[in-house]
Amino acid sequence: MLDLPDSVHVVEMLPRDGFQRLDRFVPTDEKASIIDDLATTGVDEIEFTSFTHPKAVPNLRDADEVARRITRRDDVTYRALVPNAVGMERALDAGVDKVNALVTVSESYSRKNQSMSTSEILDEVEQIVDLAAGTDVLVEAGIGTSFYCPYEGRIPQERTLEVVDRVVEAGVDEVTLATTMGLANPVQVDAMFTEVFDRHPGVDAGLHLHDTNGMSLANTLAAMQCGVDRFDASVCGLGGGVVLPEGLSGVGNTPTEDLAHMLTETGVDTGLDFERTEAVAHSISDRLDLGATSHVLMGGTARRVLDTVASDAEP
Amino acid sequence: MLDLPDSVHVVEMLPRDGFQRLDRFVPTDEKASIIDDLATTGVDEIEFTSFTHPKAVPNLRDADEVARRITRRDDVTYRALVPNAVGMERALDAGVDKVNALVTVSESYSRKNQSMSTSEILDEVEQIVDLAAGTDVLVEAGIGTSFYCPYEGRIPQERTLEVVDRVVEAGVDEVTLATTMGLANPVQVDAMFTEVFDRHPGVDAGLHLHDTNGMSLANTLAAMQCGVDRFDASVCGLGGGVVLPEGLSGVGNTPTEDLAHMLTETGVDTGLDFERTEAVAHSISDRLDLGATSHVLMGGTARRVLDTVASDAEP
Repeated sequence: MLDLPDSVHVVEMLPRDGFQRLDRFVPTDEKASIIDDLATTGVDEIEFTSFTHPKAVPNLRDADEVARRITRRDDVTYRALVPNAVGMERALDAGVDKVNALVTVSESYSRKNQSMSTSEILDEVEQIVDLAAGTDVLVEAGIGTSFYCPYEGRIPQERTLEVVDRVVEAGVDEVTLATTMGLANPVQVDAMFTEVFDRHPGVDAGLHLHDTNGMSLANTLAAMQCGVDRFDASVCGLGGGVVLPEGLSGVGNTPTEDLAHMLTETGVDTGLDFERTEAVAHSISDRLDLGATSHVLMGGTARRVLDTVASDAEP
Repeated sequence: MLDLPDSVHVVEMLPRDGFQRLDRFVPTDEKASIIDDLATTGVDEIEFTSFTHPKAVPNLRDADEVARRITRRDDVTYRALVPNAVGMERALDAGVDKVNALVTVSESYSRKNQSMSTSEILDEVEQIVDLAAGTDVLVEAGIGTSFYCPYEGRIPQERTLEVVDRVVEAGVDEVTLATTMGLANPVQVDAMFTEVFDRHPGVDAGLHLHDTNGMSLANTLAAMQCGVDRFDASVCGLGGGVVLPEGLSGVGNTPTEDLAHMLTETGVDTGLDFERTEAVAHSISDRLDLGATSHVLMGGTARRVLDTVASDAEP
């Protein structure tokens, strides 16, 4: 029998992974309004921006101002990406609840994305943990290119596990493995998390989902069976790294509404109100002119299918 | 740890589920040529037509002629759908290796699709089994609307199991549960097959995959973990019932190339040559003007992604 957890956490990535990948700057007020809308779905946590250098990610150059304009809810954890200690200082000033300290296993990707080697970034993570000490701010390490890198191909599992070891030793509160390229498969996910929990029993481990190969819901199922209880997704599937090569437009995130659909239908509690999530997905798809980029947006739910039938019923 | 089988069977559905759903009649020679192409992928079995009344499925009115024009390979099982005993007699005349005796759990769908009640169809299945006796022809019972019906909504598990009981008692060689609406989820699939194997230990059970909700690869993972080792899919995802209401264009089959991709990557042997399957999918998509209707066709494989990177690499 399939052994699924009673509940998992979902982290909404659209305001960071999505806005950074759009081909235009979304005005700060619209960003804040969309983030406030996303906070009404019942989601536990939102990665609402990235405190990175404005030249590295111009679309998120208004991170500090976004932090001021959003309306904070007590039941939502507001997380921000920090690529280094300088970003951490800005995030602390902005009053975030949690940071995503990004480390990338691939040296090639690290240098392109953060202008540092993996080892240098690991030093930054140690500084980020030190800066968080004595505050209420939690530190999650997001491990980029945990499975595949666009420049280096398949990343050997052992290299990713070494980075996991390092961030756990550094004292982070949570670790999230990212399928940056959306190419991981369920056996890779299972093998990786089995090792992670074996090396670090009780570690708070999450999976950041992209869906280039269409296996991300199968990966979610495999990860839940290993004990993973936190999943990063993005409404409308909007997202992807800023240093992905041209031509890789298909590397979207897993759509939050599709993830929420499967989890709701299979009785795994996420806190998300599925119908509200679906409505917000439609609204954001309209506002950002994204089209039908998920199965839910294409009408792939039992309620919508049966409504379609009812409206076409013969007299 | 994820416990997957060493190998499973894949059944190619495009020539039946796909051609029946197209908005045009594919000429008989082109059908035969596509079926012969599909037979080069290494696939075990092809459902190559349906011996149904020409008025019920006009697109497949040339079933007998298709059977004559294809070039049979010894390593492929040629299966045809038979909706009743009359169809079975035609199938026997045509020299098929196996038939798919279709039974639909939903009374509403049964009457629309086969102009009989479920009980009347079960009587036909008994006749089909009798007709197969003394021949080498295998009988597989395909159980339509095993999970959802477009007219009746969610089908109670017990009703589907009663139909499974009846066809097993009738003496069929194999049973296949169909997610006709593509709305089933992994917990439903797990619960259903757990019961099927509990009631009928050792039964040869398969899953016919549609993918309206995007969960079909997760369903495949759940079904394999239950012991299911046969999966129906269609190249390019082309397929869907002929009596689906208007507006349900999204009820495609799971694309064979996406299924083959996951199984190949996870080390589950299917006999399919993945690269050949991918090439045939591209070729058929072009011939039938289908567009990029699967993750593989959209380039979502590691090889294609990395090729894209290599061709964009900076000097």
